[in-house]
Amino acid sequence: MTIRGFSRGEFEARHCRAQSIMREEGFDALVVCSPHNVRYFSGFDSPFWESPTRPWFIVVPAVGAPIAVIPEIGAPEMTRTWVKDIRTWPSPQPSDDGVSLLASVLTGLARRTGRIGFELGREHSLRMPVVDFLALRDRLSLELSNGSPCLWRIRMVKSQAEIDKIRHICAIASDAYGHVPEIVSATDTEREAARKLRIDLAQRGADATPFLPCISGPGGVAQIVCGPGDRAFEEGDIVFFDTGSTFDGYFCDFDRNYAVGRVSDACLRAHEAMWLATEAGMAAARPGATTDDVFAAMARIIENAGSIGNNVGRIGHGLGLQLTEPPSHMPGDGTVIAPGMVLTIEPGMEYAPGKMIVHEENIVVTEDGAVLLTTRAPCELPILS
Amino acid sequence: MTIRGFSRGEFEARHCRAQSIMREEGFDALVVCSPHNVRYFSGFDSPFWESPTRPWFIVVPAVGAPIAVIPEIGAPEMTRTWVKDIRTWPSPQPSDDGVSLLASVLTGLARRTGRIGFELGREHSLRMPVVDFLALRDRLSLELSNGSPCLWRIRMVKSQAEIDKIRHICAIASDAYGHVPEIVSATDTEREAARKLRIDLAQRGADATPFLPCISGPGGVAQIVCGPGDRAFEEGDIVFFDTGSTFDGYFCDFDRNYAVGRVSDACLRAHEAMWLATEAGMAAARPGATTDDVFAAMARIIENAGSIGNNVGRIGHGLGLQLTEPPSHMPGDGTVIAPGMVLTIEPGMEYAPGKMIVHEENIVVTEDGAVLLTTRAPCELPILS
Repeated sequence: MTIRGFSRGEFEARHCRAQSIMREEGFDALVVCSPHNVRYFSGFDSPFWESPTRPWFIVVPAVGAPIAVIPEIGAPEMTRTWVKDIRTWPSPQPSDDGVSLLASVLTGLARRTGRIGFELGREHSLRMPVVDFLALRDRLSLELSNGSPCLWRIRMVKSQAEIDKIRHICAIASDAYGHVPEIVSATDTEREAARKLRIDLAQRGADATPFLPCISGPGGVAQIVCGPGDRAFEEGDIVFFDTGSTFDGYFCDFDRNYAVGRVSDACLRAHEAMWLATEAGMAAARPGATTDDVFAAMARIIENAGSIGNNVGRIGHGLGLQLTEPPSHMPGDGTVIAPGMVLTIEPGMEYAPGKMIVHEENIVVTEDGAVLLTTRAPCELPILS
Repeated sequence: MTIRGFSRGEFEARHCRAQSIMREEGFDALVVCSPHNVRYFSGFDSPFWESPTRPWFIVVPAVGAPIAVIPEIGAPEMTRTWVKDIRTWPSPQPSDDGVSLLASVLTGLARRTGRIGFELGREHSLRMPVVDFLALRDRLSLELSNGSPCLWRIRMVKSQAEIDKIRHICAIASDAYGHVPEIVSATDTEREAARKLRIDLAQRGADATPFLPCISGPGGVAQIVCGPGDRAFEEGDIVFFDTGSTFDGYFCDFDRNYAVGRVSDACLRAHEAMWLATEAGMAAARPGATTDDVFAAMARIIENAGSIGNNVGRIGHGLGLQLTEPPSHMPGDGTVIAPGMVLTIEPGMEYAPGKMIVHEENIVVTEDGAVLLTTRAPCELPILS
């Protein structure tokens, strides 16, 4: 059984690596308030992020230990993490919800560049009121700037312990997908099918399933991100499942396609082409290659197969504590692939209007190239009966 | 069976009410990008919010129909909502992810005050990069200001159709809690018990369970927002479950306590006091009273019962599309309670260091006072064996 949590050494290593990168990028500290970054640096885990009421902060200074600046409600659990410097305030406190306390902590930090990185950039939402952030910026004689590229650089390469957790949830979801033809019937609705898979994932040991679209359509699907709806499956359908389920906070993110009875030859050809494009994407995801190269390797096959489009905008991305993380396999992304990156390989094509086929696997990059974390989808479409 | 989705009339009524409130508050438009507000105004539902990569916008003008400004990937599904003016861009597009398109839409709106409300205030995170928001603010000759109070004023009073969905998920969770003594054993761990309840909730028709702490401790719990952990239950424990599960996007949020075998008399007294405090809170939640009054009615009983504290900071709040929403039952909140508000009544106390007892029910406010949406917790502690 894969263990829960991380060793103190893991957090020390993350902290040390983050400090090295943030010094390179000229930050005196990073301040994070999003659930995933708080968890990454502190180990603090809670479903309480569903409540938008209270802000939470972890200050990661370029020198010295991390500081938690959090509402009192979180103190008992934060005390159990490796973070030992915990400052609290009684929250909710609308007139000053942590702003003064955070200001005093930042003012007390060792000063070198005077730049503090916040989650202001791409693929980040700032989980504190923007008016509070702007007030904080006005009152401090520090430059509060965009720490997002630095934070993503830190998180993009995973440790072995992180990879083990992703591998574990990928195995759980692979087994559940393999079981789908036994539990889902050709006469189910999307919603019934999704519910069955959700229960099966929980029974197999997934902690949570925040993402589980089930989408069906004649020979393909019009979109891959909304659903399930109440549509009942019909002969000739493609049934598309995708799941972001988690184990100990870490996501898998991969899909599977099933045929209801007999699908058209054009659909089968598109399916086979995407299977081959996945092979090409995995082969291209080697250290030193770029995400542009991975895109190009798949795009050739997708175009040759007669794609008329794809509204997804990229054909794979990073994953980890979040369902999707940088980088993106798309022209211009330019990220150099490195060992320890965990990526989706996600080619898709619309072979006729409204008929899209999308495949997806999860890999980890090693010195020798990509290693599958998922059980490879069969080249032949599985059939629901 | 409670129906899914809302009628076109429901969205028209929301839009019309929002326009009336935003004109009162001097906004030419509200721009929302958070999942819950996008869903509230458009009906657009997707689990894809788990991906932080692409921003989405709904523009709600003070005059005229709503405008969706969204990534191409979302267009097929947005077309199925009541929103007919849909503008898309190919995303991800790091150099300009929707900013120019949104700017041109805002520039084209009818101008009265020149003020546009964004989700900049309390209990909101802005779901777009802050650097993009600041760039947008700089390039427009419009005042982009804090629309949060206006948005919460709009959402705080629920329609009958919204209340029906919350009642439905409250009934599902009430039944599941009632079933807990049959499926959870006195020798389970917190994690095993939470998994059993998660599966039971899905089987009974909950769509998702984003919030499900299960926390145990001798005679009470040290905190109520983190967990489950791997602690095994012991004789004399309180086992505390809380769940925010959803049906069609709407949350319940209420807890239940169970005893493992025989708990101390002090624990039983605290439990009974919190049951009585809940009664008092429900009685106080009448139209015209304030959240301060509801707080005071419960606080008297909590203090008389010998409370030594409570790290939660409030004793109830709103709920709906989110697990917690304004208002808060706490001194100084000052919200006047009105028919259509859906609220939690959540008294808690620490009766000895590290031993907290917290009760919670969900109510809807009517002209005649509070009506329970949950099946009232028994006054006597149920026992796990």
